[in-house]
Amino acid sequence: MKFDAMLKARWGAADTLLCVGLDPDPARFSERLQHSPDSIYQFCTSIVDATADFVCAFKPQIAYFASAGAEDALQRLIVYVRATHPAIPVILDAKRGDMASTAQHYAREVFERYDAHAVTLSPYLGFDSIEPYLAYPDRGVFLLCRTSNAGGDDLQMLQVEGERLYERVARLAVEWNRSGQLGLVVGATYPRELARVRALAGEMPLLVPGIGAQGGDVEGSVKAGQTADGAGIVVNSSRAIIYASGNGDFAEAARHAAQKARDEINRYRFATA
Amino acid sequence: MKFDAMLKARWGAADTLLCVGLDPDPARFSERLQHSPDSIYQFCTSIVDATADFVCAFKPQIAYFASAGAEDALQRLIVYVRATHPAIPVILDAKRGDMASTAQHYAREVFERYDAHAVTLSPYLGFDSIEPYLAYPDRGVFLLCRTSNAGGDDLQMLQVEGERLYERVARLAVEWNRSGQLGLVVGATYPRELARVRALAGEMPLLVPGIGAQGGDVEGSVKAGQTADGAGIVVNSSRAIIYASGNGDFAEAARHAAQKARDEINRYRFATA
Repeated sequence: MKFDAMLKARWGAADTLLCVGLDPDPARFSERLQHSPDSIYQFCTSIVDATADFVCAFKPQIAYFASAGAEDALQRLIVYVRATHPAIPVILDAKRGDMASTAQHYAREVFERYDAHAVTLSPYLGFDSIEPYLAYPDRGVFLLCRTSNAGGDDLQMLQVEGERLYERVARLAVEWNRSGQLGLVVGATYPRELARVRALAGEMPLLVPGIGAQGGDVEGSVKAGQTADGAGIVVNSSRAIIYASGNGDFAEAARHAAQKARDEINRYRFATA
Repeated sequence: MKFDAMLKARWGAADTLLCVGLDPDPARFSERLQHSPDSIYQFCTSIVDATADFVCAFKPQIAYFASAGAEDALQRLIVYVRATHPAIPVILDAKRGDMASTAQHYAREVFERYDAHAVTLSPYLGFDSIEPYLAYPDRGVFLLCRTSNAGGDDLQMLQVEGERLYERVARLAVEWNRSGQLGLVVGATYPRELARVRALAGEMPLLVPGIGAQGGDVEGSVKAGQTADGAGIVVNSSRAIIYASGNGDFAEAARHAAQKARDEINRYRFATA
């Protein structure tokens, strides 16, 4: 099944646009978990099981695994999600961006070694740096467009031949999207730009990080980003859900936080038939 | 010792601006090496020892290690370079680019886990995505500016308020470089743009990939990129050196190719006193 179809099926079947970001930071684990030799894997699989009912996708952030030398835990985590929650796609947040010969190796890392359903990429090196990922026809790619951090302004808001750079990236993505594998990343901290990207990008799926700990605007983002059928967006929250409690009840607290976030997002969706 | 000073010392002491890129692809190893269980480490350390006399830096490309699950080999490789060739800095080519809380984890990966002297980063997320790396005061950062691939044009050559985007990135890097840790990446395939970046970036070190297999212009690049003292650039060649031979004599062939590349680069340097 293609990534795009899988995401649409999940939006519909589970009635949720929420994505839970898996950013495992052992310093924030419960004390008991911190003593486990496999704490990163245990933390992530506990969060996955506790929140699965309320999510359309999981988004592990590879930097958290890489800083801890936990590549093996990441690999087993994705095997676990595929085995126990086969309808939920995994978006590996890696923001890679390199020339084609190198990108082939990154694509192998993401889609063969880790077997993720989709990946985030940077557009700075242009189309030939994206192409090697599209050679995996059932996988998806989210291109960074308008990121949720303040520094995103430095380049993305520059005026480029009559439009902003992020608008140009959105238009380029539409042009590059012959195979239907592309989506865009637009932060929930900028609902106005999100509306602009939706206008440019048609039905393309948008990954919208920045609600929760980053203070993004849920109402504004959902209203600006959704497609006519009340879907089209993958709204990510990481820390506000996975660290809802730092104690032994962290999974239960994450479940409640995920349910609350899912409900809040759904409140602003267009009614579906 | 700060990265910048280390690089300058090496340029002077070894009379070379050549960087050898370590892109270990087992499919291109000699048959005998392919049968070794630790072939990636063995290949890279053989190349390091064979070419060390002629280089100012080594540049491992992390994608090649990641696609093979060879993080451990990369870690041991950098330990090896630091132990046996302590005057030669290691630039980890990773092209990371993520928001600050995530960048902290990438910085830990690069500067603590791998203990590299410098790293390559993407500028697309702006200054706050670069800052966490600068918290390691003895380390260096090369920001992507004008990359050597054809697709680099898609964004980097856009007209931005009276200049090209890559020119804006060069000027931003100068502005962000309060601590003297920044450099820029400019491909050898574009000597005209390299001259422009040098004019904008003062004495900032430039990492110049693209000679050798990518067909970059050595004479044009050295003439355009060097500083007044005949230094200032780290000219990278990967495949043309490390795969000069695919047989058992690969290390010897790499040594000859590195010497030749070093000499060719030096031919176009300003005479130094």
